[in-house]
Amino acid sequence: MLIPALVDISDKNQDWKVFVGSGILIAIICALISAATHGERPRFTQRLGFLIVTSVWIFAAAVGAIPLYVASVEVTYAGAFFESMSGLTTTGSTVLSGLDAMPRGILLWRSLLQWLGGIGIIGMALLVLPVLRTGGMAMFHMESSDKSDKVLPRIGQLSGGIVAAYVALTLMCTVVYAGLGMSFFDAINHAMTTLSTGGFSTHDASMGFFDDDRILVASIVFMVLGSLPFVLYIRAFLPRRFQLWHDPQIMLFLCTCVVLSVAIAITRRVINDTSVEEAFVSSAFNLVSVITTTGYASDDYTLWSNAAVGLIIFATFLGGCAGSTAGGIKANRLYILSKLVAANFRRLVRPHAVIRLNYGASPIAPEQVQTITIFFFLFFGTLMVGTVILSIFGLDFDTAFSGTLTALTNVGPGIGQVIGPAGNFSTLPDGALWVLSATMLLGRLELVTVLILLFPATWAD
Amino acid sequence: MLIPALVDISDKNQDWKVFVGSGILIAIICALISAATHGERPRFTQRLGFLIVTSVWIFAAAVGAIPLYVASVEVTYAGAFFESMSGLTTTGSTVLSGLDAMPRGILLWRSLLQWLGGIGIIGMALLVLPVLRTGGMAMFHMESSDKSDKVLPRIGQLSGGIVAAYVALTLMCTVVYAGLGMSFFDAINHAMTTLSTGGFSTHDASMGFFDDDRILVASIVFMVLGSLPFVLYIRAFLPRRFQLWHDPQIMLFLCTCVVLSVAIAITRRVINDTSVEEAFVSSAFNLVSVITTTGYASDDYTLWSNAAVGLIIFATFLGGCAGSTAGGIKANRLYILSKLVAANFRRLVRPHAVIRLNYGASPIAPEQVQTITIFFFLFFGTLMVGTVILSIFGLDFDTAFSGTLTALTNVGPGIGQVIGPAGNFSTLPDGALWVLSATMLLGRLELVTVLILLFPATWAD
Repeated sequence: MLIPALVDISDKNQDWKVFVGSGILIAIICALISAATHGERPRFTQRLGFLIVTSVWIFAAAVGAIPLYVASVEVTYAGAFFESMSGLTTTGSTVLSGLDAMPRGILLWRSLLQWLGGIGIIGMALLVLPVLRTGGMAMFHMESSDKSDKVLPRIGQLSGGIVAAYVALTLMCTVVYAGLGMSFFDAINHAMTTLSTGGFSTHDASMGFFDDDRILVASIVFMVLGSLPFVLYIRAFLPRRFQLWHDPQIMLFLCTCVVLSVAIAITRRVINDTSVEEAFVSSAFNLVSVITTTGYASDDYTLWSNAAVGLIIFATFLGGCAGSTAGGIKANRLYILSKLVAANFRRLVRPHAVIRLNYGASPIAPEQVQTITIFFFLFFGTLMVGTVILSIFGLDFDTAFSGTLTALTNVGPGIGQVIGPAGNFSTLPDGALWVLSATMLLGRLELVTVLILLFPATWAD
Repeated sequence: MLIPALVDISDKNQDWKVFVGSGILIAIICALISAATHGERPRFTQRLGFLIVTSVWIFAAAVGAIPLYVASVEVTYAGAFFESMSGLTTTGSTVLSGLDAMPRGILLWRSLLQWLGGIGIIGMALLVLPVLRTGGMAMFHMESSDKSDKVLPRIGQLSGGIVAAYVALTLMCTVVYAGLGMSFFDAINHAMTTLSTGGFSTHDASMGFFDDDRILVASIVFMVLGSLPFVLYIRAFLPRRFQLWHDPQIMLFLCTCVVLSVAIAITRRVINDTSVEEAFVSSAFNLVSVITTTGYASDDYTLWSNAAVGLIIFATFLGGCAGSTAGGIKANRLYILSKLVAANFRRLVRPHAVIRLNYGASPIAPEQVQTITIFFFLFFGTLMVGTVILSIFGLDFDTAFSGTLTALTNVGPGIGQVIGPAGNFSTLPDGALWVLSATMLLGRLELVTVLILLFPATWAD
């Protein structure tokens, strides 16, 4: 909080007091908690793990909301909490408008929330979820293949390497953005929200503000880099065994990006008669923005055509790769499910054939398939229940469905008049904002981590 | 085809020639096919089985379309094929309007298609799909628990019993409808489309035409009867072992109906201030109509409120019980998936606990879980791809999404201005009608049966 405070002081904005004040408040709370839990260490159980992970995220969002709520911005606490949760889960939905005129401290605070959320997610995917065995993460394979005690220190090194890669990529992105004509403040803010696939912008028009195809292309590159498994970037420093490790989700993800971008470009060329360059760059930008779950927009793509909207909603489901800052169903799950379908089809036709199910070089365990089944069921279950709850708050089907979907996959914009890429979430009732905040958290923590806490048997002794 | 021909003759309508003509044509084609395939019997393989089942349905729909195309009704062949496929798959979507003034032969033909489709589906669920081992059907449990050769004749008796139950229920329904004031023609037509959970009506206003709550209540009862596993009705005649067979999907299905009906009634009472009786009867009728995948309407429920629309779309996914004429995801799959989630949550919290997965009294095999996973993935995959294809045909998201969904679950009406309960499918382009016809077939044949034919390895030798 010191950084935005310093920016506000340099800007002579009164909000610096808010940051310093809430910083002190949080320091006191943390000191109290630390004092209260000092002494005997409770036995670590799985359910305690789930409770801690979920609570930490909720607490962080509640804390992150304080500056937004107290500062010179018109917003209810539900709105501030929504904005903060949207930041930390790198969703990028916003209830704020008039960003261009907003104090720079607030803008930087939003970007920082996303940037910290991004690295928090990778860290969680690497360190916490494997311990809780909720699965679904690519790193899981690597760890489960090595049962020795040497794993932990190696993972410590790994984390260091990944943080370094994250910082380095963010700096590179800042330099590129600044080089292409953004102000330094815009460059660092957008770099932070690009690499975290978050999508908060310092302008209401999002990336459309700069009106520069070169910036869009640079942004495409860094959004994709933010949605690849970060282990990739430190591969050279890994033990030899992992250096050759081939991750099939990457190819699937990249091919999907290209195919869908081209498909959207074709629909725009055919239906709207857009120029070839315009069609390709802006289609690719907005598609990559959605599929990487970033959520920038350069245009109101809901005006392109029904075909383009259909393809973009399709992309909203998919998401990036596991082990990155992206959300959604994720390429590794889609890859495994496709393999499973193919294997089953083969088995139905040739009952006596021996069929092996592999993910890259390693076999797919039955428990992994079960974990993915459960994720898939909970994903679509949550999507349906969320849609129903939001429609009970009076939202129309487009808004309720796409709002739940975009929150669950941590993308950002929905479709329709209200929450489309040109609108924002400020007109929704507070109740709907709380539901959407919960949905973002569910999506970010891969559903099981949160839902298990609501399951009565978890607490039965 | 003789029956509608006779009705048309008695009505002095020229369409009787169409029915007789196409009857003769079909007899000739069948004779030719039979002559051509006479002689050596090809070795039965799994892939031949899939091919035969799919072809038979496509052929039947193509044949069923002839009278609609040739008769005195304005419709393209794509429209006639859509109508025929909608009948045979008991979906109930229609491209026709002005039903009230239509020749009675055509109306009866539509109802007959649905009625025959209904019994065809139950027969297929009992006899064909278990052989093809695509799973997902409740009867599958019963058969796989009895490996002896006595199964086949017993299944023969079973089929007879089920046909008898189907006919008896249809007659009962006719009597009840006629007793409540429908004309005999309306009563028999609606009875056929109620028990088959089809939803074709002889009136544009569907069940709303009669404007009688007692008819709606009777219809609710028979729609529910049509969506319960038909084995239930002949339980008393089954070997003792099966008499006590408890099928948990039934309770799940009935509870879902009640809970959702009450929820919709409450939203109407609160939001629209509807009278209690009106709210309960019409909410329950339209909800049951959707969840049993019948697709009658008594009202344009899309005008009730966003909350009601959300709940009804939710119900569109669910569907009835396996082993009935209903479509959708089906209650047995939802039951097994819920059990799986609960078991997995338990295992995460208590890694050493022994957890058994049961469906009623019988254990759930891992292959069943895999089969359901694959169904679930293909279901949502088809829903997404179908939505994208329809939006490429220029349909808006509401129409594309709800059209694909309602076809895939064999329900009937979608939402939105175009294909909502008050609209119909006649304004869609022919291309979209072909896509929807294919989607209805996919949904009816439980996806795998059709999709496996498109999988290259199926044909590789």
